[in-house]
Amino acid sequence: MTFSSLSQLECPRCGTVHDADQIIGLCPCGSPLLARYDVQSVKLTKDELAARPPDLWRYHELLPVRSAANVVTLGEGMTPLLPLPRYGREVGVDRLLMKDEGLIPTGTFKARGAAVGVSRAYEVGVRKIAMPTNGNAGSAWATYAARAGMEALIAMPIAAPEICRREVKVVGARLHLVDGLIGDAAAYIREQPGYFDVSTLKEPYRIEGKKTMGLEIAEQLDWQLPDVILYPTGGGVGIIGIWKALLELQELGWVDGPLPRLVAVQSTGCAPIVQAYENGLPESEPWPDAKTVAFGITVPKALGDFLVLQAIADTGGCAVAVDDEAILAELHRLAQLEGAFICPEGAATFAAVRRLRESGWIQPGEQVVALNTGLGLKYPETVPLT
Amino acid sequence: MTFSSLSQLECPRCGTVHDADQIIGLCPCGSPLLARYDVQSVKLTKDELAARPPDLWRYHELLPVRSAANVVTLGEGMTPLLPLPRYGREVGVDRLLMKDEGLIPTGTFKARGAAVGVSRAYEVGVRKIAMPTNGNAGSAWATYAARAGMEALIAMPIAAPEICRREVKVVGARLHLVDGLIGDAAAYIREQPGYFDVSTLKEPYRIEGKKTMGLEIAEQLDWQLPDVILYPTGGGVGIIGIWKALLELQELGWVDGPLPRLVAVQSTGCAPIVQAYENGLPESEPWPDAKTVAFGITVPKALGDFLVLQAIADTGGCAVAVDDEAILAELHRLAQLEGAFICPEGAATFAAVRRLRESGWIQPGEQVVALNTGLGLKYPETVPLT
Repeated sequence: MTFSSLSQLECPRCGTVHDADQIIGLCPCGSPLLARYDVQSVKLTKDELAARPPDLWRYHELLPVRSAANVVTLGEGMTPLLPLPRYGREVGVDRLLMKDEGLIPTGTFKARGAAVGVSRAYEVGVRKIAMPTNGNAGSAWATYAARAGMEALIAMPIAAPEICRREVKVVGARLHLVDGLIGDAAAYIREQPGYFDVSTLKEPYRIEGKKTMGLEIAEQLDWQLPDVILYPTGGGVGIIGIWKALLELQELGWVDGPLPRLVAVQSTGCAPIVQAYENGLPESEPWPDAKTVAFGITVPKALGDFLVLQAIADTGGCAVAVDDEAILAELHRLAQLEGAFICPEGAATFAAVRRLRESGWIQPGEQVVALNTGLGLKYPETVPLT
Repeated sequence: MTFSSLSQLECPRCGTVHDADQIIGLCPCGSPLLARYDVQSVKLTKDELAARPPDLWRYHELLPVRSAANVVTLGEGMTPLLPLPRYGREVGVDRLLMKDEGLIPTGTFKARGAAVGVSRAYEVGVRKIAMPTNGNAGSAWATYAARAGMEALIAMPIAAPEICRREVKVVGARLHLVDGLIGDAAAYIREQPGYFDVSTLKEPYRIEGKKTMGLEIAEQLDWQLPDVILYPTGGGVGIIGIWKALLELQELGWVDGPLPRLVAVQSTGCAPIVQAYENGLPESEPWPDAKTVAFGITVPKALGDFLVLQAIADTGGCAVAVDDEAILAELHRLAQLEGAFICPEGAATFAAVRRLRESGWIQPGEQVVALNTGLGLKYPETVPLT
């Protein structure tokens, strides 16, 4: 049996097909590329899957790494899907679940994209990677590059969480700080020769790692999909990945019925996708003066915005923005009621849950999954010492 | 089938047996109590176990909680057991594995003891807990108390990691800081009426949570035990728990052959158990002026020291102390070679691996498991920013 059923890379904008077994970034038309699989060739059964180790590589047939020998892993995946009975009662959503991406190497969901992205980059021959980051993706990619024995150059805003700088340094990656936003870091990276640029969606495989969140949610719910999934949205790879995963599971015949309504959650301090959604546009406009306590979703213009908007439209979802005050209030409320200390980006999804239930968009009795994308531990300043 | 096979509590010092279904702390003789199980009544097969969810409750027959309804969980357990090929080659231990206790709620192995301890305390009727801590245990117990809807009072030294204070506060527990060591915090807790004292080994169930590390190591190695297990030792509950787990697996008939040699690793700044081991004593003497970068193992005199020394003696293990310089050097080396950013306590075990291989105590070809007890993220100051 083949380890991966990867067949080709496909451009979701112009439709061009590319050979997957080469070093490649964007489609020449400028769009991100998506990995496609020969799903019909996958012979795996649900029972066989259930007996595999609890990490994201259990889904290797639907991942792009062709040889098990090239898997670079620190044990990432199969994070908890936790019922939140007390908090759910308070917000009026009895069947509320949290997918907790804090329990993963480097403490955020970025580890998924990095594990799969680094593994596949290594497999096709890359030995030096570079990327701009708001912090956590840089930590994750530097970490997995070290695990693979690859060089990494990471550029991040000075305002990014300090802990991420330390993570990049401790694993021996090169760190470059910019006095600006992630776009300024990206401009720096583009000028560095000799590195493969692994920026969000500029290489095709980070999204394959992220999609395992969708695969896990389906498996953890015994292949009965929830009604709603909410995701904090910056670059948007997480929500695109979950959508892609669910479509592949449909093709595999493992899930049926309508897909969950996907909700992109942003901050009122940086809400380009919400704005585009509300105006019925297929792409977002760059957001001026972006600023929010949920630093990880401070992305003024995402390369994959059109795919996020498509995922929302196709599933009957929506996009909502919540303010910093609501984010911090929800972070503390969830900790007090459930003992879960989550990150501001994750807290944004809970603020959205409360809001959407109040407005009636989430109906009584619906099953709702909110993604917490990382550890509260990485954002100590959200809890005053005195 | 019964959820737990718990039969009674037993004093390992005076042998007295106590009813387990009551609120009880120490044996009247002053010794910690150990939970005993009717292991012969457990009908579980290895295949049934393999199909259970990847958390520590998969071993519920060997845990003390009698009803599934009383389980307080945040998804803890089944942490990765990672091969370390590059680092292992450098230190001459080709079959070196790290059990990574960073991927667990609150980021340290303390979550195991707290999950089981809080669940069982709740089950026997406790509603208010209090404890002294070096930081991480306090974070964990406060967190699980919040998840259970219980009150918690946590006392810790001012010198404890700042992040632990924030964790205790965010979940709504009461925090008391003492200008001293953990013994001073313990003195404060003893004066607070109305709380059940859940100090290390003063209640019988924290160790039951910790022992799941031993159960997981055995299961993850397909029930073939390793040659050596190294553990950073402060209060010693981890190493006692692993020893207890392996003895219970022997009784169950799931493992055979000699037990792994258990190694207690301490810091030269606080090495009471190493001193007792070297002098052939059954108990340790309080260590004066204890101080080490591995703050979590700054325990001048552990209540369970005699059990740690017994575990070492019975398995042909040893006790070694390593200095702060070696600890920090190993922390950085492991991060560079394997991408794993671990805590100083965990790094101490790797310093011990290197030392014991150099001395020949670890033989070529032996399989060695080193415990990393927590996230490097909780100790940012181990990585200078510049």
